[in-house]
Amino acid sequence: MELVWLVPVAGFSGVVFALWLAWDVLRRDTGTDAMRDVSSMIFEGAMAFLKRQYRTIAILALATGVLITIIVGSVSEGVKDITLNPAGQVAYGEKVVGHWKEGLLTGIAFLVGAAASALSGYIGMYISVRSNARCASAATRSLKEAITVSLRGGAVSGFLVVSLSLLGVSGIFLTYSRILDNPASITPFLIVGFGFGASFVALFAQLGGGIYTKAADVGADLVGKVEAGIPEDDPRNAAVIADLVGDNVGDCAGRGADLFESMSAENIGAMILGVVIYTVTGKIEWIMFPLVLRSFGILATIVGLTSVPFFARDDGRQDPMTPLNYGYYIVSALSVVGLFIATKVMLGDAWHWFFFCGLVGIATGIAFVYITQYYTSGSWRPVKEIAEASKTGPATNIIIGTAVGYETTAATAISIGLALVVSFVLGSHADIGVPGFSSGVFGTAVATMGMLMSAAYILSMDTFGPITDNAGGITEMSGAPESARHITDSLDAVGNTTKALTKGYAVASAGLAAFLLFSAYLDKVKERLEIPLTEGLPIDLSNVDVFVGGLLGVMLVFLFSSLAIRAVGNTASAIIEEVRRQFREDPGIMAGTSRPDYARAVDITARASLRQMVAPGLLAVGMPVAVGLIFRFTRTEDSGWLAVAGLVMIGTIGGILLATFLNNVGGAWDNAKKYIEAGRMVVEGAKPGETVVLGKGTDAHKAAVVGDTVGDPFKDTAGPSLHVLVKLLSTVTLVMAPLFIN
Amino acid sequence: MELVWLVPVAGFSGVVFALWLAWDVLRRDTGTDAMRDVSSMIFEGAMAFLKRQYRTIAILALATGVLITIIVGSVSEGVKDITLNPAGQVAYGEKVVGHWKEGLLTGIAFLVGAAASALSGYIGMYISVRSNARCASAATRSLKEAITVSLRGGAVSGFLVVSLSLLGVSGIFLTYSRILDNPASITPFLIVGFGFGASFVALFAQLGGGIYTKAADVGADLVGKVEAGIPEDDPRNAAVIADLVGDNVGDCAGRGADLFESMSAENIGAMILGVVIYTVTGKIEWIMFPLVLRSFGILATIVGLTSVPFFARDDGRQDPMTPLNYGYYIVSALSVVGLFIATKVMLGDAWHWFFFCGLVGIATGIAFVYITQYYTSGSWRPVKEIAEASKTGPATNIIIGTAVGYETTAATAISIGLALVVSFVLGSHADIGVPGFSSGVFGTAVATMGMLMSAAYILSMDTFGPITDNAGGITEMSGAPESARHITDSLDAVGNTTKALTKGYAVASAGLAAFLLFSAYLDKVKERLEIPLTEGLPIDLSNVDVFVGGLLGVMLVFLFSSLAIRAVGNTASAIIEEVRRQFREDPGIMAGTSRPDYARAVDITARASLRQMVAPGLLAVGMPVAVGLIFRFTRTEDSGWLAVAGLVMIGTIGGILLATFLNNVGGAWDNAKKYIEAGRMVVEGAKPGETVVLGKGTDAHKAAVVGDTVGDPFKDTAGPSLHVLVKLLSTVTLVMAPLFIN
Repeated sequence: MELVWLVPVAGFSGVVFALWLAWDVLRRDTGTDAMRDVSSMIFEGAMAFLKRQYRTIAILALATGVLITIIVGSVSEGVKDITLNPAGQVAYGEKVVGHWKEGLLTGIAFLVGAAASALSGYIGMYISVRSNARCASAATRSLKEAITVSLRGGAVSGFLVVSLSLLGVSGIFLTYSRILDNPASITPFLIVGFGFGASFVALFAQLGGGIYTKAADVGADLVGKVEAGIPEDDPRNAAVIADLVGDNVGDCAGRGADLFESMSAENIGAMILGVVIYTVTGKIEWIMFPLVLRSFGILATIVGLTSVPFFARDDGRQDPMTPLNYGYYIVSALSVVGLFIATKVMLGDAWHWFFFCGLVGIATGIAFVYITQYYTSGSWRPVKEIAEASKTGPATNIIIGTAVGYETTAATAISIGLALVVSFVLGSHADIGVPGFSSGVFGTAVATMGMLMSAAYILSMDTFGPITDNAGGITEMSGAPESARHITDSLDAVGNTTKALTKGYAVASAGLAAFLLFSAYLDKVKERLEIPLTEGLPIDLSNVDVFVGGLLGVMLVFLFSSLAIRAVGNTASAIIEEVRRQFREDPGIMAGTSRPDYARAVDITARASLRQMVAPGLLAVGMPVAVGLIFRFTRTEDSGWLAVAGLVMIGTIGGILLATFLNNVGGAWDNAKKYIEAGRMVVEGAKPGETVVLGKGTDAHKAAVVGDTVGDPFKDTAGPSLHVLVKLLSTVTLVMAPLFIN
Repeated sequence: MELVWLVPVAGFSGVVFALWLAWDVLRRDTGTDAMRDVSSMIFEGAMAFLKRQYRTIAILALATGVLITIIVGSVSEGVKDITLNPAGQVAYGEKVVGHWKEGLLTGIAFLVGAAASALSGYIGMYISVRSNARCASAATRSLKEAITVSLRGGAVSGFLVVSLSLLGVSGIFLTYSRILDNPASITPFLIVGFGFGASFVALFAQLGGGIYTKAADVGADLVGKVEAGIPEDDPRNAAVIADLVGDNVGDCAGRGADLFESMSAENIGAMILGVVIYTVTGKIEWIMFPLVLRSFGILATIVGLTSVPFFARDDGRQDPMTPLNYGYYIVSALSVVGLFIATKVMLGDAWHWFFFCGLVGIATGIAFVYITQYYTSGSWRPVKEIAEASKTGPATNIIIGTAVGYETTAATAISIGLALVVSFVLGSHADIGVPGFSSGVFGTAVATMGMLMSAAYILSMDTFGPITDNAGGITEMSGAPESARHITDSLDAVGNTTKALTKGYAVASAGLAAFLLFSAYLDKVKERLEIPLTEGLPIDLSNVDVFVGGLLGVMLVFLFSSLAIRAVGNTASAIIEEVRRQFREDPGIMAGTSRPDYARAVDITARASLRQMVAPGLLAVGMPVAVGLIFRFTRTEDSGWLAVAGLVMIGTIGGILLATFLNNVGGAWDNAKKYIEAGRMVVEGAKPGETVVLGKGTDAHKAAVVGDTVGDPFKDTAGPSLHVLVKLLSTVTLVMAPLFIN
């Protein structure tokens, strides 16, 4: 049990650090009255949305929790102890948990996971919408201060998410194993509900937030810029507050829940893998290792994040991305140290192989940071190519954008594939003395953990995005000086990059985690079929059930995206109607003499987006269950769990790559527009040697705006919801497994 | 050997019928001098392109044929006889074909397959470009005559493709088994090269043709309609002939090669399945059955096609789709009769189960005809929804179009999945007395054959499209009377529908055929690993090699689409430059006093598109081979063939669904534009009760044109090339299998 004491230490350190950050941000100057005014409207809108959203989610989660208890309780055969059988295999012994108790524990774990996820999203978002005016105010003074405020505001969310995930998983593990006195070897199976709860909330948080943010964005643009001809963030547009609220609910609360889920599910999946080794070696370290490694990650991130302001310079020439990058390097370097200590102390004689696996994971995280930058930042070929294509109109902008977007799947697939194979091979070299057990799969688990060590830092950078975006809007609406707007603009551009990075990171971690969770699913199936855990259980791809399950899995990914994209359109229509109505009924709004009813626009957007999130959400949860049941009852004995296995694994592959496309193409279209707006597209003029800048207001710019608008629901609604979907598929099937097996 | 005599009878009947159709079309009136003039330019352009394209393909095919001979000859261990072993299993006996002989026979089969595919494409296209002026001329007289000419012109291609596939496969089977005296049980393995040759030519024909047609289309539109402000098909546009040529090379030659390949590969895959049953029962019927069923299909189609003119009425009220639908019903009904006879006579006591399987296939074909119509025709919700979204501009048109396109994958996946599972279950009921052999897989094979019985009819309808499209262009350019243009317009609209149908049909058949070919691949692997054919060989999806192979397979699908879409953009730029140059250097063109240099535009398009087809084509052929080799040599013994299996199967799932999206969204965008142009979008006016038609020239129409342009490379280049890619993946790995196995 060496090093396990680190888990509570790091977990509570993370919480305390987050509280200190929150205190530090909240004590700062909130700016002018005008700033406070705008900020409080955003705050109220955001809180009203969250309240309404969490109410809906709470009802759905409670109902699902009860359903889980009943289903698992009635169809399960209870949990058998895991011991060595006479043949030396890891197999099942006596029943130690009755089926109703199993159902109850699973249902409770589900609700705890859901609650922890919701709590971290709520607090993080609370601080985020409290930070925006403070960032706007800081921007009137210096870049350095503005970076500090926005990064610290973002880090509250980052640390809470990671720490609550760690404390939640370890807390429920401790409770179930020590207090409720279950064997440590079966406890990981009892807490899989925690992961499902987390992904359940994440799915709805990301979907609802994603629909809200983009519907408000597209609606505000269409009715303001296009119809009424007023600028972006103009206070006369009734949808403008809804738009600013949307930045928070999508990027902050949504992505936080997404990564909360990645970490929780990955932790539980890795602990399940550790069970077999624990059973043979008797060393609990194999089960606790993921929690310890996460703890080192939190400590590394505290240091890295604290160091950022020291790298920031106020000379006006520094790219604000630079200090953030330095901070990330520090986190990575310290993670390597933590990885070294944890593997050496905990993982037996062959520890060095797992150390290498962890390095692969850390390197994969860094690789994704660079891949995403290459494809979505204006400094490289892809975005420039899209900007060039805008010269011949919106159609070519979309065509070339799509080609670039499809192309980005290659780097993602190759990186994830390489990470999986290399860590598998390295892990396979480790002789851990458990015959029949693939230490290669444990290697991929360590790689996933290594990658997720920097999660708190990545999340802090992500939440940085909406804070600076909001600060820009507040600066604009409150009539702050030009210099402040200049600072928030430069931070906003960085925020766009960090938001894109986080999505790439989330996709990659989803891919790695899925492979891990899948082996946990097989372990559950083996229990039911009474196959020793150290024996293989092939999922034969040439089996018609697996193949058709896979076909349905990829279909689910497309259909879900279709519903998510369409939901944005439907919600946007509701906002447009409302803004039009306000313009029509009160001519004073356009004249600038009366103030539009922002709250009503916020409220209508919230209600419409929450209504729209239900259908895709239920599709995601319901379809794997429905497929499992249909195949189980209409086909052969094994068809149910086989079809589900095909659906989850092949759906995951499709989902990861479609999400990559949607995220990257959206980011690239966005930045192609910004590239043109920044006056970076220079063409030959009519006379030889003459050059003309194709900037804002040209036809090329209008074409690029079309691409940007198309990309909005892709990158902020469908794409991010897809990575959550991918993980949800794994967790829902893990919990519901008994339902698919005769 | 009952009924086998039908194969040559039907094959030669098909050819004779095609010759009669060609004679009937060619003897008809070629219209006015102006019509002949335009038609001869199209003819020359099309032939010049084909000549150049076939030269490129011939070089690539020859090199590949030699490579195959060398590779298979040197890495294979020769072909062992297939017999019953003492345990009663179907297993391998003595080596009967040496490895160099195997290489040579495979290489020759490849070249014969490639040549037969090229020949059928060439002749079909020759007649098609000879039919267009005759159709235009017929349109000056009556709708009925115009339908007859265009359908018969299209049917030349349809019948040649199907008959040459049947004669090719049966001819090479006969040659290899009887003349070269190889056992009938191993001959199907020796002729797999034929399928690879066919798919090789199909891939390049579809890619080159698809790039050409859409680059010419997009280029002509952008430089003509958008830049110069002249109407579509205006003779002053130098790219207009290239555009008309493109319709033929894409839809006619490309799709013909695509279905040639489907049928050949499906035939060979089904014959390989029959080998096991033949070895046990000694009845050669199990191997010959696919050829006989295809023969019935040809005979049924001759009757159905001949009947179409009898259903056509000239009262001006009949939808031209109606007689085509009646013809299809007749083909389907006669196919059921043929299926009944063939299964009853040839497939032993349990024949009725396979009869039901065939019915499932025929029903699936009909289902796809309706699904495609629902999603791409203006009479239903999806297209109307896209048209509505055009009111708020191009961005919402693209967003809703994408949502609709993703949605269409659901109907496709569910239909294919249902067809596979139901035919598998029905087939499993048939007791054919071969222990260990899955008669379920044979059931899916019969379903595939049933579906493909109507291939000649579907292809005739497809080639109908470019003929009527061309006839419309000729009518426009030759100044024919308004009434003729009206007739060709109505036929053109039908042509759009039939082209879309064919793509849906091709996707579905690719999905079914892939499942079949995959089991043939496993049989090849079993031979090498000396596992009896009647034993299972699971492809474990939770194996890291299979999973990563699958990830790379779906990535290949996206990357290939990216290259194909981009190729259209690059080629279009070349045309735009050329047309601009001609306008600039000869002002007489715009004034209408001098004629543009059409031939040069055609030539430049041809050269650019052929250059652009090489990269995606080589990626498709090279990647499965590269993945197999890399995994074989860097991982474990079995990793090579396992990774390839994952790549092919999971890539197939991704490819089918992405192709469905690309085809359907393109068709829906096209018809949303046509819906608006036809004046069918009516909105409320400013006054209560007043209505306004949002038609041609409105902003909504402009937005719909953007969607249509985006959809062009999707539906006519990337989508159709993807179904060929899917089948190519199966055939290339089938031939190259020895390379991936230690």
